[in-house]
Order: sequence, then C-alpha cells, then structure tokens
Amino acid sequence: MKTDLFAEEKFKVVVLGCHGGPKENNLSCYLLAPIESNEYIALDAGTLLEGIFIATKNKSFDDIKTNPFSTEDREIEIFRSHVSGYFISHAHLDHVSGLIINSTADSKKTIFGIDSTIDFIRDYLFNWKIWPNFASEGTKPYLNHYQYKRLNIGEKISLERPKVNIEPFLLSHPDGYQSTAFLIESSDSYVVYFGDTAPDSLESQKNIEKIWHKIAPLISQNKLRGIFLECSFSSEVGPSHLHGHLNTTYMMEELNKLARLVNPSSPETALKNVKVIVTHIKNTFHNGVSAQQIIQDELKKLNNLNVQLIFPEQGKKIEL
Amino acid sequence: MKTDLFAEEKFKVVVLGCHGGPKENNLSCYLLAPIESNEYIALDAGTLLEGIFIATKNKSFDDIKTNPFSTEDREIEIFRSHVSGYFISHAHLDHVSGLIINSTADSKKTIFGIDSTIDFIRDYLFNWKIWPNFASEGTKPYLNHYQYKRLNIGEKISLERPKVNIEPFLLSHPDGYQSTAFLIESSDSYVVYFGDTAPDSLESQKNIEKIWHKIAPLISQNKLRGIFLECSFSSEVGPSHLHGHLNTTYMMEELNKLARLVNPSSPETALKNVKVIVTHIKNTFHNGVSAQQIIQDELKKLNNLNVQLIFPEQGKKIEL
Repeated sequence: MKTDLFAEEKFKVVVLGCHGGPKENNLSCYLLAPIESNEYIALDAGTLLEGIFIATKNKSFDDIKTNPFSTEDREIEIFRSHVSGYFISHAHLDHVSGLIINSTADSKKTIFGIDSTIDFIRDYLFNWKIWPNFASEGTKPYLNHYQYKRLNIGEKISLERPKVNIEPFLLSHPDGYQSTAFLIESSDSYVVYFGDTAPDSLESQKNIEKIWHKIAPLISQNKLRGIFLECSFSSEVGPSHLHGHLNTTYMMEELNKLARLVNPSSPETALKNVKVIVTHIKNTFHNGVSAQQIIQDELKKLNNLNVQLIFPEQGKKIEL
Repeated sequence: MKTDLFAEEKFKVVVLGCHGGPKENNLSCYLLAPIESNEYIALDAGTLLEGIFIATKNKSFDDIKTNPFSTEDREIEIFRSHVSGYFISHAHLDHVSGLIINSTADSKKTIFGIDSTIDFIRDYLFNWKIWPNFASEGTKPYLNHYQYKRLNIGEKISLERPKVNIEPFLLSHPDGYQSTAFLIESSDSYVVYFGDTAPDSLESQKNIEKIWHKIAPLISQNKLRGIFLECSFSSEVGPSHLHGHLNTTYMMEELNKLARLVNPSSPETALKNVKVIVTHIKNTFHNGVSAQQIIQDELKKLNNLNVQLIFPEQGKKIEL
C-alpha cells in the first residue's frame, strides 16, 4: 500500500512540452500554479501555444472558467490571461522557441532569467533579425510587449500573480554556459525545476550539490513537492557525448547524493516520498524503439531509492 | 469543364508546415522534388521533422521505399537521406526553427541563402548561445554538419540531387530587411516560391515586379507550374499593420499586375491555368473563426483572374 505523506496537493502543473528534441513540437515548457490558483507561471517556453491547445483538448484547464465577455478563443484567452510570466532556464532554442514565435499573439508579460539568459534572448532572438523586438531592451525600436527581469543568484523574488517566491540557482550546461534551476515556494511548500544541467562529476563547479544542500532540509520537513530533473539520455550515451546533460546513470548518481544528505544513516529510504518529474528526454528513432521507452525502463531498474518517478506527457496535468 | 494544360505533373511538393504562426507546430516548410525524383529540397524550414512524421502518416512519402538495411525509423531516414538541402528565404524564426532544433538528428547538408540570411543564422542561431554551431562558419568550434552556400542575385545555381536549377530574387520584408524568392527549374518546367514579402506598392523597391517580368514569359509558354505566394492576413489588416506581408487585397493586386504583363489585352484570362499556393497565413483565434477560413473565403471572392488557388495542409502532397 502506497503511503502518501502529501494527502493534500499544493501545486498543479500543466505540461505544454516535455522533450529536448529533436522533434520541434513538444519542447520543455511547464505551467505551474499553486493548487488553488489559475494564474500560472511558465517554466521554460519551448512549446507554448500548441501545448495549450493540446492541454485544453485534454481538459487540463477545466478549472479555468471561460470569460463570457471574451471574443478570444479559449486557448488564446488561457495563453494571454492565465500565463503570467516566463521563467527561462537558459536561452537554448528548445527552451524559448514557443515564446518567440507565439509572441505576436501574447499579452504584456515579464520574462525572468539570469543575465546571460536575458542577454542572449535580447541580442540574438528579439533583435529584428531573427524576430521583431517584442521586448523593451536591445535593438530599437521596442515593441514593449515584454519586460525583462534579471534574476540574481542568492536573491528570492516574490510574485503577486500567482503568489509565489522564486529563487534561482546556477547550473552548468556545460563548460561555463550558464543554465538555471528555480526553487518555487507557495505557502511553505516547494518545487524545484532544473533547466539543462551537466552532472557535477563532469564539471568543476558543483552546482547541483548546492541545490541539494538547499532542498535536503525541505525534504526532511516534508515540504518539497517535486523535483523536475532533466534526463536527456539513456546510459548508452557516455560522458563525452552528454554535451552538458544528464543520462540515467548520472541522474541516479545525483539523486543518491541528495539522499545521503537527507538521511546519511539510511539514504536508501530518504527520498521514497519525493516525486521526480523526468524532463527533457531527447528522443531517438531507431528500430521503432523510442529513447523515451529505454530511459523509462532504465530508470525504473536503476531506481534504488524508490523515488516516485513521473514521466510527463504533453497536454497532461500533474498535481504535486 | 476544367481544361488542364498540364496533363503531366512535373513537380511534387510535400507540405511540412504552411503557416506564419502564431502556433509553433506548423510553420513554413515545403519539400519540393521533380516528379520522378525522391530527392527533395526544402523551401524554408520552419517545421521540419514533425511535418515529416505527419506526412508519413498521411502516406505522402509512399513512393519512397524504406531501406531494408537501415536501423533508422522511416521518418528519420526520410529526413536524413531524402532532404538534400535547405533553401531559406530569410532568417525569421518561423522559417528556420525546425532546421535549428532538428539539427541534432540531421545528416550533413547545405544551407542555401543570400548573405543576410546566412549571416543571421550564423551569428544569431548556430552561435553556441542559442544553439551549438552545427555549421562551418562563425563561432568556434564548428560541428561541420552544415555548409553554408551563399546565393547571389542574378546567378542561377545547379544542383545534382535533385537535378534542378535555382535562381534567387530579392524581396522586401519590409524596410530593407531582405527576404528571397526562389525560381526553381527542372527540365524546362518552373515553380516560384516566395518568402515573406511586402507588397510593391508599400515599398520603394519594386521587387515583386522584377519577378513578374521574369515569369510572365514562362506563363505564356506554359512552363510555370505554380506560384507559392504568401498571404499572411485578411483584408481587415491594413497597410500600417502588415509588417512586410501581403493581405488578400494586396495579393490579388500583385497577381493582377502579373496578369497584365502576361496578356495586356486580356489580363482577366491570362492566369487561368496558373496554380497559386497560398502560404504563410497567420492564424487568429476569435469567436471560433480562424483567419485561415476568412482568407480562403476572401480570396475566392476576390479572385477575378480565376487563378487556381491551392490552400496547402500540413503533411499533404501537392503535384504541380
């Protein structure tokens, strides 16, 4: 019998995209809201509007009432009025392409990210060469649709809609290219979302370890509701081909480090109530077998910690 | 009774994406091959691999035999072995996002474009900030997957696979941002593909007129098999909101200019055998009515020339 410490869910997540390519229709983007709210933040924005259409079909937004005075179709209304801002982990195109391409239909919003993320979006995407400048910095003229808000490591920011606090953490992806994890808090419940990340053991900076130190006490206090962690590759893909990502082996290695921090005397049971949402699987297509299936099978086998593995699906809702 | 001058089709086109946003799953990309060939060139590359999956499901590639020795899934084999190169009209993201994101699964190929197109892809996309540099110029290191080939206005280039000649023409999109049209010839039959373009009447350069002068004689000689022409907006969207695109009114205005060149004494019948493939419709979503439907209805009404209007659909095949 499954015992669930978390009888009451605190967050809801609508998966707008969950892969790291190579297909372009289902790329990292998770809408997150406190369970009682219908104001979502987007964690990355690889596939946005198309994901909202699929999620609407799947009834994942059924707790949002359509505004009877709106002339917008329901999906556009959700996109414009219920996604309050974008937290971008890094500027690789599979994390921002929806944001750029959908911008012509979007309402005024804020794009949150560390300096390098904002700089790259500003200089290389919203620059009138690749796309009109829908933002308020960079190449003129500004269309003033989006405001950039730069996040500083070590500083929490507080949003009003939805009411959450968010703290960014650096990740390496790889060789000094900075990616970000976000720790999101609502009423003393937490979720942590990882952008793309290399394993600590292949990088000089031990960035993941810093996050584990931060969240280990939250796990002990039963306050952590979920870890969105990337696992781009199966174990077949070795260190020299990871390009700043985790494979199944490294993912479990990192989770084992976390487990030892949470409970050094009994690490094997330390994470048994932790939900790990496996993100950014890079699909391959050989002999009719998808990498998705291989990675699912491997992780189930390698899961010595009995963490609760969740494999997100585009358009589906997850409660945490 | 419809009389068709072109009993025998000379080109086949598989539509991988046909819109100009705001959704990100169905963006400009047309695979074109001489009718007897299974070597395609891509005209723009907004949605690539996802389009190949849909087209395969639709049996649009049924004349391609699967290689029994390949371990790749059929869609990947088509992508890697039957798309020989990319002709990019300009570097706006809705024309290249598939190319960038799918690159990790692609084989070695050439990307063709005018200088500004290649420069923008090189400097802003394959630059290690937005995406690894899969090409052979720009920010080092080079992954040497793609070679850039710069096209010069007034110069035809000849390909071997497929056997076609291609000539680029400048378009304005708008205010000096250069876009491109491609005139493709196979065995003395022609197709012209327009990237995004402003109407001549709103630009100082009369770029569309130059192309009409080039293709008017081809129409008189019954050698032109089709015109891929963008029509982003309905007539409701006026000059100040076109942002370098055609609406239905301007599209018909431009086609009327072509008709007068082809047959000044009887323009109204000059294009009756010409197929116009209407590309790049930007969908809107209000009151459950799509811009696609409005534009189709308007064009049918405005079509004083009786051109044969074709509205492409993602995954479908068109023979010309």
